[in-house]
Amino acid sequence: DARAANPSCSYPLAPKSRASNKVLTQDADTPDAHVVRDSRLIRLTGIHPFNTEAPLSDLYNEGFITTKDLHYVRNHGPVPNAEEQNIYDWEFTVEGMVEKPFKLSLQNLIDEFQQVTYPVTLVCAGNRRKEQNIVRKSRGFSWGPAGLSTALWTGVPLPELLRRAGVRRGAKYVYFEGDEKLPNGQYGTSEKLNWAMDANKGFLIAHKMNGEILHPDHGKPVRVVIPGQIGGRSVKWLRKIVVTDRPSDNWYHIYDNRVLPTTVTPEASDSLPNTWKDERYAIYDLNTNSATAYPAHNEVLSLDNTQGDTYNVRGYAYSGGGKRVTRVEITLDKGRTWKLANIKYPEDEYRNAREGEMLYGGLLDMSWRESCFCWCFWDLDIPMSEIASCDDIMVRAMDDSMMVQPRDMYWSVLGMMNNPWFRIVVHKEAHNLRFEHPTQPALMPGGWMERVKKAGGKITNGFWGEKIGEEEE
Amino acid sequence: DARAANPSCSYPLAPKSRASNKVLTQDADTPDAHVVRDSRLIRLTGIHPFNTEAPLSDLYNEGFITTKDLHYVRNHGPVPNAEEQNIYDWEFTVEGMVEKPFKLSLQNLIDEFQQVTYPVTLVCAGNRRKEQNIVRKSRGFSWGPAGLSTALWTGVPLPELLRRAGVRRGAKYVYFEGDEKLPNGQYGTSEKLNWAMDANKGFLIAHKMNGEILHPDHGKPVRVVIPGQIGGRSVKWLRKIVVTDRPSDNWYHIYDNRVLPTTVTPEASDSLPNTWKDERYAIYDLNTNSATAYPAHNEVLSLDNTQGDTYNVRGYAYSGGGKRVTRVEITLDKGRTWKLANIKYPEDEYRNAREGEMLYGGLLDMSWRESCFCWCFWDLDIPMSEIASCDDIMVRAMDDSMMVQPRDMYWSVLGMMNNPWFRIVVHKEAHNLRFEHPTQPALMPGGWMERVKKAGGKITNGFWGEKIGEEEE
Repeated sequence: DARAANPSCSYPLAPKSRASNKVLTQDADTPDAHVVRDSRLIRLTGIHPFNTEAPLSDLYNEGFITTKDLHYVRNHGPVPNAEEQNIYDWEFTVEGMVEKPFKLSLQNLIDEFQQVTYPVTLVCAGNRRKEQNIVRKSRGFSWGPAGLSTALWTGVPLPELLRRAGVRRGAKYVYFEGDEKLPNGQYGTSEKLNWAMDANKGFLIAHKMNGEILHPDHGKPVRVVIPGQIGGRSVKWLRKIVVTDRPSDNWYHIYDNRVLPTTVTPEASDSLPNTWKDERYAIYDLNTNSATAYPAHNEVLSLDNTQGDTYNVRGYAYSGGGKRVTRVEITLDKGRTWKLANIKYPEDEYRNAREGEMLYGGLLDMSWRESCFCWCFWDLDIPMSEIASCDDIMVRAMDDSMMVQPRDMYWSVLGMMNNPWFRIVVHKEAHNLRFEHPTQPALMPGGWMERVKKAGGKITNGFWGEKIGEEEE
Repeated sequence: DARAANPSCSYPLAPKSRASNKVLTQDADTPDAHVVRDSRLIRLTGIHPFNTEAPLSDLYNEGFITTKDLHYVRNHGPVPNAEEQNIYDWEFTVEGMVEKPFKLSLQNLIDEFQQVTYPVTLVCAGNRRKEQNIVRKSRGFSWGPAGLSTALWTGVPLPELLRRAGVRRGAKYVYFEGDEKLPNGQYGTSEKLNWAMDANKGFLIAHKMNGEILHPDHGKPVRVVIPGQIGGRSVKWLRKIVVTDRPSDNWYHIYDNRVLPTTVTPEASDSLPNTWKDERYAIYDLNTNSATAYPAHNEVLSLDNTQGDTYNVRGYAYSGGGKRVTRVEITLDKGRTWKLANIKYPEDEYRNAREGEMLYGGLLDMSWRESCFCWCFWDLDIPMSEIASCDDIMVRAMDDSMMVQPRDMYWSVLGMMNNPWFRIVVHKEAHNLRFEHPTQPALMPGGWMERVKKAGGKITNGFWGEKIGEEEE
């Protein structure tokens, strides 16, 4: 038990896994029959490939660190089967525009470099995409707001590997390729070399998650972890690190993980290869986002004997590129007035680790790092009387560059980076209040967006599709 | 002539200054009687202290690099008089939590360190504040949208000075103090040490602007230049660099350059010292912003014989923290649909300088830097028929973290970081179109915000105060 081994620590560790050793019956007849999973995960793309998020309440209830049980998964195809007995022989290369290209086994990676451990929240670029899909079908499946998870990752900072290889002049990018064999080739993507070399950016070649060998769904046995960026850049089952002078032309680098201009329709996008290849539209840093966990969807609150009571509205927020969420605000009147929520940043607790502290075999030294790579939690006690008399509860976050989440959705072809104010509708039903989230993940019915759309409301009319005032058009 | 000395260069240099050697009559009876200025600058705080911006069209017309004539100025008091014959003896210290504190003259700074030159757009945190002041008077004077300027700065990267001093363990901040004697003490402010030590952040101790000794209004003879951040952190007339373990308690660090929560009223702010001291509300990185230069305010376009003609709508945009503006969009229908504008990034041209290229005595080497510290220009040809049939032209920018300027203003006590969509109203007048910007700087009348407010419209009703649909409340 890591906490017992570090009695002085006050930073969070993962809750105990509930995982069994049994493969779920759903997976038995798939190429993933070797992968043990948790049945609570919601499958977003049928049975296979495995793309899943936890129910939002379950994810939130686990706290700061997510277990492997409930960590979201984004797989493009079958999970590579790295046999347990051989994982330390797993090899990957560092090559391309370097003085001394080399091949490294996982055992070499562990033996020859200083290991480090720190927490990172990974977020799928598709987090909250279901909302986009209701407005207009995008080219992507329907994530709810639980497409994010936080783990303690152990491994070697990428700059150490690049320094050993010796980057040649003129190099500008670094390409990562994984062991996934897919219809459009291996999964691979590139990053700016300057960022990859910057210790403050925290690029990590990881082989442990919450102190354990990586779960197969999370890249067993070696993966990239890029803090503050969308999960799609953190290549799993790592096979190649290639230093280059140009961005990757891998199909998945070009046609995935992009926010095309909102002017581009799905139909038009088919004949716009230069738009797809425009690096300006590639997503790297996460944008600033937030969601409310409680009240949960369909949660019911009795109004009997609640005089003087408050309800603790609460949820999560995050930003990208190391930026901190500096304020979270709640409105009960559609943005006319705002209340300031409390923010808790458990990530800060790791910065207080004592000098030289080790965790899971890696140095835990975040005292020098002025960046936030994890989600934070916000909450606010609101009088029941106010909740009972409002129509909706909306939340928005602001980051330390003073950028605030937008009121309105920025719809795009791939439906990514959806971050308008998260809105929960409050229904009055006899002696109860019932709460309604925007959507439910995957094909699950429910949520005010679907309801409003079915009733003929135009969700993007600036009033969330409700007949408030005269609508334009 | 620098361009003649660098015949291969294709990057922009400053246009020729029109400055005379005469002190303006307005300045003659002030403590700034030693400072030569351009009469085109608009004084925002009366005659003295000198706080000025250029007319937006003049600023835009100068192009990428702004002359000292039109560079915006933010002075808190009298300009320190660094006598020309002594400026190389000007001294400043590097002290605090360092192994070897030292004092350095400007001559030492030039003789003992490698000099570098690069362009930086400085932006006042109050840029576009007039718009906030019309909604509700803030504690700040009324900047229009020309509170920003770009210059080529020459000096020494701050990390070089800090490395010579040797930062001690536990240090977390660095404090800069200038030679301004003000009612609340010397002007000073602090930064995160980790950022100051990071070459990618580009902190510079500068002594030349566009190849000349600094103009007195811009810190003669030595100042800090912090790219990607608000101008208020780039301390002028530098006297002290102090490494510390906590943020500065200088009055100007606490009570200036902050965005308090929008919930905090001016009255309430008087009794909220802990809110003021909350570092989360201190502004460092600029937010993403844009404005339209043309059509200019009160520009008139004849509609006669314009069939088939287009008008080139154009302006500037910027982001903070090194982020790139990745798209600029125009709406003619209040945000229901958007058009994608062209973007020009003159900053990129400097990245192509040949290896070892010198400019103004400093190495021009930006090829390795993956960051954008300057404004960019956007433009779009729009058919006259579309302009003639719309009510307004609005622009918004998005940065590479996929954050987009908000539709609505985030009002705050100091009125800083104002960045909602920039809106120009189109008036049809007989055979002409007349354009109206949101405001005019300082106490100058004009602009749709003032007009709408005087007519009883509520500017923040979500419809820019216009009677479109039934307003709420």
